[in-house]
Amino acid sequence: MAIDDQYQIHLQKLTNKEQPVTETIYALGNGHMGVRASNPLQGNSDHYEGNPGLFVNGFYDLSPITYGERYFGYPRNNQTIAQLPDPRFLILEIDGVRSDQTPFRVETIDKNLDMETGLLVETFRITTPKQKMLTLTLQSFMSQSDYHLYVVRYEIRALNFSGKVTLLKQHNYVNQSIPNSNEDVRRAQRHNPLGQVYMPADSPTMLIETQKSQLGILMMFHYLGSDPRMKMVSRNNIPCYEVQLDLTPGKLEQFAFGYSLGNIHALMTVEMGPDFYIKKTLERFHEQNFAKLFEASANHMRHFWQDSDIVIDGDPTLQRGIRFNLFHLYQAAGRDSVTDVPAKGVTGPGYEGHYFWDTEMYMLPFFIYTQPEIAKALLTYRFSILDEARQHAREMGIENGVLYPWRTINGEEASAYYPAGTAQVHINADIAYATDLYIQVTQDMDFLENYGFEMIVSTARFWLAFGNYGEQGKQKNKFVINAVTGPDEYTALVDNNYYTNRMAQNNLFIAVKYAKQLQKENPTKLADLGVNEEEIVAFQTAANKMYLPYDDDLQIKMQDDSSPNRPVFDIANEPRENFPLLLHYHPLVLYRYRVNKQADTLMSDFLFPFDQDEPQLQRDYDYYEKITTHDSSLSRAIFSVLANRIHNPEKAYNYFMDTALMDLTDLQGNSADGIHAANMGGTWLSLIYGFAGMHAGINGLTFDPQFPSEWLFLSFKVKYHKRQIKVAIQRQEVTFTLLVGKPINIFYREQEVELVNSTPVIIHLTGLQV
Amino acid sequence: MAIDDQYQIHLQKLTNKEQPVTETIYALGNGHMGVRASNPLQGNSDHYEGNPGLFVNGFYDLSPITYGERYFGYPRNNQTIAQLPDPRFLILEIDGVRSDQTPFRVETIDKNLDMETGLLVETFRITTPKQKMLTLTLQSFMSQSDYHLYVVRYEIRALNFSGKVTLLKQHNYVNQSIPNSNEDVRRAQRHNPLGQVYMPADSPTMLIETQKSQLGILMMFHYLGSDPRMKMVSRNNIPCYEVQLDLTPGKLEQFAFGYSLGNIHALMTVEMGPDFYIKKTLERFHEQNFAKLFEASANHMRHFWQDSDIVIDGDPTLQRGIRFNLFHLYQAAGRDSVTDVPAKGVTGPGYEGHYFWDTEMYMLPFFIYTQPEIAKALLTYRFSILDEARQHAREMGIENGVLYPWRTINGEEASAYYPAGTAQVHINADIAYATDLYIQVTQDMDFLENYGFEMIVSTARFWLAFGNYGEQGKQKNKFVINAVTGPDEYTALVDNNYYTNRMAQNNLFIAVKYAKQLQKENPTKLADLGVNEEEIVAFQTAANKMYLPYDDDLQIKMQDDSSPNRPVFDIANEPRENFPLLLHYHPLVLYRYRVNKQADTLMSDFLFPFDQDEPQLQRDYDYYEKITTHDSSLSRAIFSVLANRIHNPEKAYNYFMDTALMDLTDLQGNSADGIHAANMGGTWLSLIYGFAGMHAGINGLTFDPQFPSEWLFLSFKVKYHKRQIKVAIQRQEVTFTLLVGKPINIFYREQEVELVNSTPVIIHLTGLQV
Repeated sequence: MAIDDQYQIHLQKLTNKEQPVTETIYALGNGHMGVRASNPLQGNSDHYEGNPGLFVNGFYDLSPITYGERYFGYPRNNQTIAQLPDPRFLILEIDGVRSDQTPFRVETIDKNLDMETGLLVETFRITTPKQKMLTLTLQSFMSQSDYHLYVVRYEIRALNFSGKVTLLKQHNYVNQSIPNSNEDVRRAQRHNPLGQVYMPADSPTMLIETQKSQLGILMMFHYLGSDPRMKMVSRNNIPCYEVQLDLTPGKLEQFAFGYSLGNIHALMTVEMGPDFYIKKTLERFHEQNFAKLFEASANHMRHFWQDSDIVIDGDPTLQRGIRFNLFHLYQAAGRDSVTDVPAKGVTGPGYEGHYFWDTEMYMLPFFIYTQPEIAKALLTYRFSILDEARQHAREMGIENGVLYPWRTINGEEASAYYPAGTAQVHINADIAYATDLYIQVTQDMDFLENYGFEMIVSTARFWLAFGNYGEQGKQKNKFVINAVTGPDEYTALVDNNYYTNRMAQNNLFIAVKYAKQLQKENPTKLADLGVNEEEIVAFQTAANKMYLPYDDDLQIKMQDDSSPNRPVFDIANEPRENFPLLLHYHPLVLYRYRVNKQADTLMSDFLFPFDQDEPQLQRDYDYYEKITTHDSSLSRAIFSVLANRIHNPEKAYNYFMDTALMDLTDLQGNSADGIHAANMGGTWLSLIYGFAGMHAGINGLTFDPQFPSEWLFLSFKVKYHKRQIKVAIQRQEVTFTLLVGKPINIFYREQEVELVNSTPVIIHLTGLQV
Repeated sequence: MAIDDQYQIHLQKLTNKEQPVTETIYALGNGHMGVRASNPLQGNSDHYEGNPGLFVNGFYDLSPITYGERYFGYPRNNQTIAQLPDPRFLILEIDGVRSDQTPFRVETIDKNLDMETGLLVETFRITTPKQKMLTLTLQSFMSQSDYHLYVVRYEIRALNFSGKVTLLKQHNYVNQSIPNSNEDVRRAQRHNPLGQVYMPADSPTMLIETQKSQLGILMMFHYLGSDPRMKMVSRNNIPCYEVQLDLTPGKLEQFAFGYSLGNIHALMTVEMGPDFYIKKTLERFHEQNFAKLFEASANHMRHFWQDSDIVIDGDPTLQRGIRFNLFHLYQAAGRDSVTDVPAKGVTGPGYEGHYFWDTEMYMLPFFIYTQPEIAKALLTYRFSILDEARQHAREMGIENGVLYPWRTINGEEASAYYPAGTAQVHINADIAYATDLYIQVTQDMDFLENYGFEMIVSTARFWLAFGNYGEQGKQKNKFVINAVTGPDEYTALVDNNYYTNRMAQNNLFIAVKYAKQLQKENPTKLADLGVNEEEIVAFQTAANKMYLPYDDDLQIKMQDDSSPNRPVFDIANEPRENFPLLLHYHPLVLYRYRVNKQADTLMSDFLFPFDQDEPQLQRDYDYYEKITTHDSSLSRAIFSVLANRIHNPEKAYNYFMDTALMDLTDLQGNSADGIHAANMGGTWLSLIYGFAGMHAGINGLTFDPQFPSEWLFLSFKVKYHKRQIKVAIQRQEVTFTLLVGKPINIFYREQEVELVNSTPVIIHLTGLQV
């Protein structure tokens, strides 16, 4: 079936089939943990070119940051996600030779990921040193219904021999070291050794502890079957499952194992020790098998697609690519309210497993509109680190409010280069923006009162303390924000970055908005947080007087106070191999030029569509497009959305196609380090904010589709104001269907559309490109 | 005698008598090497609170710089001056107990430095574990006539016992390690282990080699005497001199040793190995003794004072303090054309032995006017690193010209924090300024043609490539210089730092000036350097169009484009313990405020006195004084000079008195790490540029004295246009005497003063403060 095929990621279809890249592409995760699609026989051996392992979201270790010159207030510690033992690891013993000691030749025959259910099937051909050949097939899935569970089934058959084969399944110690002199700041900079000890248990169980962050995790695996040949034994003092097989060509042997990972700190909290956890886990595995566990997970996955799928007709590759992005977004997002979305999901050690603004500005819209419970969990994580953010503000000399860390796992700032780290104070306003969007779209007033308002007020307070009123020139009596870095990291420590100021203004405005709302609905809440009339006025005044730099000559929004008098970097004549520029130029070189790593001022045009008319947007777009390298994976999606708004379908389509397939085609050349989660969120933005032209404005939900001629059909669902609405766009018409909830009016452009029941409402389009 | 006493630095007169501070104060040096005034019995032992050692200017090792995040073009290596074995080290053995194994109690009874000759005399009282007491007196000097020679004489006498004492003299291995997690960037950040092996020789000789920079030095010492009891022996396989003494109270024993240090690379060049050097050195020591060696050095020292002394009557403490500064300046400056002046001289490991702009802007005027040969040697060092500076410019994306490193020993950039390092590109213009000053004052046309012009042109070319013409606002069609850091390190990465732009303008102007001069005198030189008419025009145009920010409202020179709209830091209400601010605030905090670490824009007013009239200077002064913390030791001297120019004698005097005695009073609290050499140069500037009002203008040498009421008499000598002129200022008159050279006209204010022969010319003053 055509549709089914578009849920499949076949190895043959990939542009880059190198081991480290396919490990990322086929990584399985569930927000809590992720497993890279390693070569199962080679584990962590030295000659293995891949980077196998398991990552648990938020399970990190600390190590001191060494600075060339350390200054006051610099972060003390790196926070680095731990690379845990690869649960796919398997040992074969044939003719007295063990595959972990004398490497067998392993060829990948096929891989296929079925995104509809989350099942990964991989086939390898194995050749022993004595030329015995076998086929090994792995079927694996990360459970979506039990976040602590990963299941792998090995199928083995002899190809050219009959004879004895021993299958050994044990934990795979991790003992890699990544040198910290790495030249690419986007990659993991270090690897911290882990404490790893075996626990007495009926299945091989390891207690893994970090050295400095004092986190612990219990990792156990259990044989899911009843074959009496399978035995738990001890080999070299290492507990393992062992089965001795008599293979003949054509005969298939099959064994499944379930992995369970339990956070020790969580266990301690409920005063239950490791023994209790081990016992409980074994009980959970009791009478389970691969099929039952899989079905539970696959059902969960199908529910995800039910709400979050996007269907495109007219381009099967794209359809597959979009699903791939949605699938990975779902795999990446923490769902437990104490973790966020690492920039690389749980698919690799890139960016050290840190959380950035990527979550709020690129990924949250997808979750807010299709999986609001996850959006809520992610924002609740931000709430949970308010204390650390308050402390961070104090360290930065700000006596009121909070400053969220630019990059973090545990809530503390982990950026070791503040000009492209802590100076990106816009993170505060980004979090406030997303909080507001969540509340607007979901109408979750509980969240507003118990979490959201405190976050919005605390971030607003930061701006009042951090900014000041200007004394001279255009800035006179305007609220200015100096010495910050905007989203564009090729420009640093500037005054009045447009995006930052506009976002800070929004932060102040929404603080006022909710303060006034709560003054009526829940005045105690205001008192609890010490918000008084005077402060509300101060918020309002600063917002009203916010300085937004504008170039009167060029009639464009100015990126910052410095930009007009900097020379333009000659992107067009720069050799291709010099991109990304940050790997080929000293920061001081880039900072001196007008050159953007990514959308910066345009991010503001993107987020606030009613700030400017179309001619203004066109000018901004033309100006900034010329100076943008898109060296950041966060750039093209925004350009795609804006190209739609200026009715340039060709650009919109081209930018979108680059971003939609970024990891599948290894566009940035570094998918090996993990997926580009923000860009995957960007794909959703491009489609829904861009091509479907969706916007949650003051009046309500509006659609203004710009349908590319390449497609026949685009359909998706969104949740809004406790409804679920299906939108289906074709060349000549758009169909809205109210799937869940009470009647609601939405908008097609300025035209009000009444959705009263589940009957589709069809609007015939006139203005769409054909 | 009163005058003689003012050449003495008595221990009793010091404010801070702690061991690490007195080690610096009494450090002896000769530009090539320096020895800290350690406790001689305790050497490098663990419980020793001091920081003993010998430093050889330019003898450094490399170690990799570790960055939290490394970016393209960052310097790879630290360059750290090596801390060599302390040559004062001595072992006493009494009752079978050795002072290096079981520490003896050592009390400092007295120290006195005779600056006139350079002789340091120190007396210690030593108490053994068995309560035997001795007096140990060290007489030592660093030879000024033989740069490789240091001499120390030990005098020992028993106080309360008669008995045997063994005196052992051996090399003192260095095995210290300074942790690199240091919180104060001004201190040495690390200590690299040295290779140390004994060489076969007739005196104890050690070959000391660095690990990575591949430098080597031979260090030997020789007994300077003929006492037959003195024997060279081997103890624990360590060669040493040993003498067994029978002490009785009142009986004095005396032994002198000469140390010689030879650079191995220099030896290799002339194809003479270590053996040859050892032989030559021993020959040199032959028939030498303490007195002869001392006399040669003391004579040299007396010559120094002849040309460089400043006499002040009315304040003996100040007189002593000024001599102390001049003495240390002389000790600090490399004289071999391949070394510069380390920021801490050769008195300590602070700032890792690096050379900064301190040399050119604070110390060179003293040398240019009183020791021009040393000035020439120092500028020749800068010439010798032109290739590295060219390479550095390329790394910073500049295709033409050179960029001098902000801090260096070997010519490569060693700054690990570019916002307060490489971004201080004004270093280029500073070096050009000093080169021009040297040529103006000395009329050394050979230097201009062979060294100076290339330096001036190469630095001027940098500005053309680094800056650009502005497109908007006040900067439109003006030459702008963006994203730089000026002298004030509390403000970083700004556009159009006034000082930088003004200095770059000067750099371009003098490039044009000398290009035009050489067009007539030596056109080949221009061709050699590829200087053509077009380039000269480009220099001239950029200089003419240089943007110099000015605040029209406040009518002051603006520090940079950003400053007017930043809030003023409340210095007055900041707790005293929070200074220096850089140790108590994150850079992002300081950068957001109007607060200066040191004179920045005022440095321009200081260097270019004819740029502004007195009312303008007054406004600039008042404005910047309010926002300056003087956290840098480079600040107060400039304020003192300018206070004289605005006829504020009280401020001029107070700032001067703070700076004149900075190290003697440990004003900054970190003299332990080494002297503040730039501030010592600043003392000379305060006196000569400030109180004497000297300026080398276009017309010639001008004096405009502002004589403080506290003094009776100020006199000094300067060399100018191949003359030497003595200037003596009293309350009512100033006397000029032509000591050397042909007749010359100088100026008292606008009044021309003819000096035709050695007859003093007395000018009666009317306008001076009394």
